[in-house]
Amino acid sequence: MEVQARAPGKIILAGEHAVVHGSTAVASSIDLYTYVSIHFSTPSDNDDLLKLVLKDTAVEFSWPIGKIKQAFPESAAPLSATPNSCSVENAKSIASLVEQLDIPEAKFGLASGVSAFLWLYTSIQGFKPATVVVTSELPLGSGLGSSASFCVALAAALLAFTDSVSLDLKHKGWLSFGVKELDLVNKWAFEGEKIIHGKPSGIDNTVSVYGNIISFRSGTLTHMKSNLSLKMLVTNTKVGRNTKALVAGVSERMLRHPDAMAFVFSAVDSISKELTTVLKLHTPDDLSVTEKEEKIEELMEMNQGLLQCMGVSHATIETVLRTTLKYKLASKLTGAGGGGCVLTLLPTLLSGTVVDKVVAELESCGFQCFIAGIGGGGVEISFGASS
Amino acid sequence: MEVQARAPGKIILAGEHAVVHGSTAVASSIDLYTYVSIHFSTPSDNDDLLKLVLKDTAVEFSWPIGKIKQAFPESAAPLSATPNSCSVENAKSIASLVEQLDIPEAKFGLASGVSAFLWLYTSIQGFKPATVVVTSELPLGSGLGSSASFCVALAAALLAFTDSVSLDLKHKGWLSFGVKELDLVNKWAFEGEKIIHGKPSGIDNTVSVYGNIISFRSGTLTHMKSNLSLKMLVTNTKVGRNTKALVAGVSERMLRHPDAMAFVFSAVDSISKELTTVLKLHTPDDLSVTEKEEKIEELMEMNQGLLQCMGVSHATIETVLRTTLKYKLASKLTGAGGGGCVLTLLPTLLSGTVVDKVVAELESCGFQCFIAGIGGGGVEISFGASS
Repeated sequence: MEVQARAPGKIILAGEHAVVHGSTAVASSIDLYTYVSIHFSTPSDNDDLLKLVLKDTAVEFSWPIGKIKQAFPESAAPLSATPNSCSVENAKSIASLVEQLDIPEAKFGLASGVSAFLWLYTSIQGFKPATVVVTSELPLGSGLGSSASFCVALAAALLAFTDSVSLDLKHKGWLSFGVKELDLVNKWAFEGEKIIHGKPSGIDNTVSVYGNIISFRSGTLTHMKSNLSLKMLVTNTKVGRNTKALVAGVSERMLRHPDAMAFVFSAVDSISKELTTVLKLHTPDDLSVTEKEEKIEELMEMNQGLLQCMGVSHATIETVLRTTLKYKLASKLTGAGGGGCVLTLLPTLLSGTVVDKVVAELESCGFQCFIAGIGGGGVEISFGASS
Repeated sequence: MEVQARAPGKIILAGEHAVVHGSTAVASSIDLYTYVSIHFSTPSDNDDLLKLVLKDTAVEFSWPIGKIKQAFPESAAPLSATPNSCSVENAKSIASLVEQLDIPEAKFGLASGVSAFLWLYTSIQGFKPATVVVTSELPLGSGLGSSASFCVALAAALLAFTDSVSLDLKHKGWLSFGVKELDLVNKWAFEGEKIIHGKPSGIDNTVSVYGNIISFRSGTLTHMKSNLSLKMLVTNTKVGRNTKALVAGVSERMLRHPDAMAFVFSAVDSISKELTTVLKLHTPDDLSVTEKEEKIEELMEMNQGLLQCMGVSHATIETVLRTTLKYKLASKLTGAGGGGCVLTLLPTLLSGTVVDKVVAELESCGFQCFIAGIGGGGVEISFGASS
């Protein structure tokens, strides 16, 4: 029995930081995925292990099923249909299992992901021996939602064979879930995100599950489908950020300059709303694709200026901005700022030669570039041989 | 008979561009001056010429007084006490005089300054032969108010020996005017600015005449004196700007994004108001000098972000920002943007070594650096030998 799930990463198109202070933000899926495949051992495999293979970091962990059973005495029955949070008791058991792994210091960041894995696996599948293989096109910890897409793909793959979802096991290729099933995947993924991040906003897993574009404000999410097929160059500056410190910095600036910052947040709110309007417009009735792209570029430039006003830019971000500006391309940071990733719109009519030049120049600065389509579908599943 | 006048340049500390849309802006004098000295020929000089020597550009113009008399048949009497605008008739005469100068193409920019000179000179002093020597510490056409400081120093020097002002001719060193006389200098200087710029705002000449700091909004000026002795590094990117096009660009962006831009302008208004509050605070009662400087740095950074949001930054400006940021110094463009000058606050406790390093690095980029004190006095006059 084998199943593979893939779940997309996300970017913030507009409104990061300001959203914490009541403004609208807009997030989108990107067609870069985390893949989770599960091969459940058969009795003939004569294998009584739960194995987790993280291909990108070339790390493999395994636990004898007996040891896992011992660690979770309460979880006698799998709970696929009723996502619930990790209890303090279980968190302790997981911490002890993870500690024993002797994860090398350089890969400490993996510990929380392994913890989320143990919780989701045992909660949904109980104590079945299996090998779980994870690969991802998303850089870790750079604001592209890698952890959420991992939790989403994992939850989807784990739920695929349970009674909680009904899927056509004979379908060839990628298969979508129904809305009710997506909701269930989303709830489980959110539980995983809580283990990794403590207090996640839930945006990342929601975008990864449902795909497309989501605008959100004060905890209210609005799903929408773009009528525009946008391409973004995503540049990873590889500078690690302290998201909490950046968010706190903006709040402190707001306390020091309440009037000015309130206007700045309102300006961002207007920009996010304008952006959703442009994305929803029908082409060619309202605006040509080029006109829409120009509008979006201007909104990105404006949003970036406002983020600089909040104090969350960074020297590496400025380097990306300067480099892309040379080619008359508009860019903005995405996510927390202070490093992380920068978005650059690649207009439909832009020649491949220019894209190659920009990418080469950015990579020569030590950055990592991805080209990503915006607003595609969410989590999907595939049965049989892994692709 | 010899007199020398000096008039300071200006910078915009906050609010450029937004002021066009109703926000408050703050301008300040800088202690970089244009010097105008006039030596009136005595009969023994046996000289019947009006000479204008522009030392910085190594250009000298001269007109036989007879020719000037011919050109201005109406200006029979000097008009020092009643500043008035150049009539169409006189403008034609001036244009014809300037045309005959055969100004080399590279120095075409001087033509409007020479025109203003001819108008102010003949209006205030009539047809006296003299040699007028101009030197300036201000770069031309880079937004530091060089033309206004020229008009102000010229008007002051021309008025010094007229009945319209009463000054102690025996005073040694620099001497200030009384308020009534400053008002007269300002009106004449504004007439000169009109010849150079067409429709000047009047801010540049006003700052140059009265010195200190002026906040302005919707045409209302408020004079104030700073309680803080600030030093700025002024970096001239040497990139020429088209101020009209930049102003028009902001207005067009406002038409495209009325809501967002209205909030941006309001944010700038708050920043300008906060800045004037900080500048007026008494030390050490309210805040220490360092605390004030930190506030000002933050306001500058915020204002710069908002200017980027308006779309008036430039690659060279970003280079200055990145360079100064490396030394943890805050910068913003000043004036129209799109090149021009950038301000960097030099905190009181900053070591001279760091300043030298920053300046060296900026100059290695091809920029020109000035260190300027902010908010000093306005136009002054000195009799006797030129200093």
